[in-house]
Amino acid sequence: VRSQVRILRVGERESLLLEDQVAREFSLTLILNDRELVTLLCSPADLEQLALGYLLSEGLIEGAEEVERLSLEKRRGTVRIWTKGRPSAFSQGVIGSGGGRGLWPTFEGIKPVTSELHLTPMEALELSRQLQRRSEAFRATAGVHSAALCDRERILVFKEDIGRHNALDKVFGECLLKGTSTVDGIMAMSGRISSEMLLKVARRRVPVIISRAAPTDLAVKLARRLGIALIGFARGRRMNVYAGGWRLGLSGV
Amino acid sequence: VRSQVRILRVGERESLLLEDQVAREFSLTLILNDRELVTLLCSPADLEQLALGYLLSEGLIEGAEEVERLSLEKRRGTVRIWTKGRPSAFSQGVIGSGGGRGLWPTFEGIKPVTSELHLTPMEALELSRQLQRRSEAFRATAGVHSAALCDRERILVFKEDIGRHNALDKVFGECLLKGTSTVDGIMAMSGRISSEMLLKVARRRVPVIISRAAPTDLAVKLARRLGIALIGFARGRRMNVYAGGWRLGLSGV
Repeated sequence: VRSQVRILRVGERESLLLEDQVAREFSLTLILNDRELVTLLCSPADLEQLALGYLLSEGLIEGAEEVERLSLEKRRGTVRIWTKGRPSAFSQGVIGSGGGRGLWPTFEGIKPVTSELHLTPMEALELSRQLQRRSEAFRATAGVHSAALCDRERILVFKEDIGRHNALDKVFGECLLKGTSTVDGIMAMSGRISSEMLLKVARRRVPVIISRAAPTDLAVKLARRLGIALIGFARGRRMNVYAGGWRLGLSGV
Repeated sequence: VRSQVRILRVGERESLLLEDQVAREFSLTLILNDRELVTLLCSPADLEQLALGYLLSEGLIEGAEEVERLSLEKRRGTVRIWTKGRPSAFSQGVIGSGGGRGLWPTFEGIKPVTSELHLTPMEALELSRQLQRRSEAFRATAGVHSAALCDRERILVFKEDIGRHNALDKVFGECLLKGTSTVDGIMAMSGRISSEMLLKVARRRVPVIISRAAPTDLAVKLARRLGIALIGFARGRRMNVYAGGWRLGLSGV
């Protein structure tokens, strides 16, 4: 369930190039009675259990006796299940680990971010601090997420929601209403960065994403491919740079 | 974005009945060009922004100029949007704040849990401790969630995933494979409890749910209606009981 990635650990005086572990993110497509049902973004373990549990939770099966056969092809990222009742289920799209909604398979069409935006590590940390300050104690304990579009100095649009994806979408919606451009923006977020968050940000042409939490391995890969600076664990005076170090004047990642 | 609920704060020596704040959870249905597109579970603020941002993220619009009209009816929980291009989008079901997948609107069909299971507050705290112990430091920092089906004394099935819903589904899938009954089980979880988690647990007839984190207001309402004991912030020697106190020998909630 974990993967090694090269990161730059940036501290106050020095930055260190090292190998760190991030959570793996795996794409599993469930094929029910020869029809594609859903693609789940998940950790790559216990995939049969996930498939069966998903069918249970969705009410597509009630017990083991309804399952005729199950066949996992991990390399292809598919699990095929045949049931006795042959329930008529239609496609449910892609379900991300954090509330994703179908963006994932279309990433082929998303182009690298062309912005030439640079910022300093200290600017990135200061934005993370500002986000933290805006998120009250209640919100943090209640599990409410926040997202903010920033320029290099300050927060321009701040939104929050019980869902990480909703917080991000609210920011983009507000930008649309206000006519705020996201093209040279910096997105600061409270939560973990999965592949879907990365793709959403890429779609709006945002060249930098900063979080106090961790990214997944897939988010790191996508950030590298799409030219996005990906910063995690931005807390106090330290942070990890996973991709796009050149935007921070750093080399190695 | 918050709601008052009556809770029992259970400490080592005493338990206190008080009013506490939990995050509100709101159901917003997006109707695009007179067709129902999706239902989002979200915080009840900035709903126009959420609707527009969702359409942007899904690639259904590219900018403000494509939006002809937007009409929010908050009481009904709907937002209607008409676009100029009239993109052909089909229904995307229900998207929860934490990766939900369409269970929500069907809760009318879910019956109250009939189990007579009781446990003591100390047993509940001990299970939360065991869950914590099983989740390594890496998993916690990487944002990997865990879920465990327990009896009153110990963990029976433990699973983890980058998605909270996946972790829960993996537990149920393993129970199905092993023939483990969930009927008098206790579900211990690492993450926040939203309405969807509550409904999943109810569907498998699990009478007790314990988390180190907070529930939403909707999860509390559903737990009360469905006869499920809902325990949050179970850490160290303290916890909050939000519903089903009778299962712990307590009255008031």
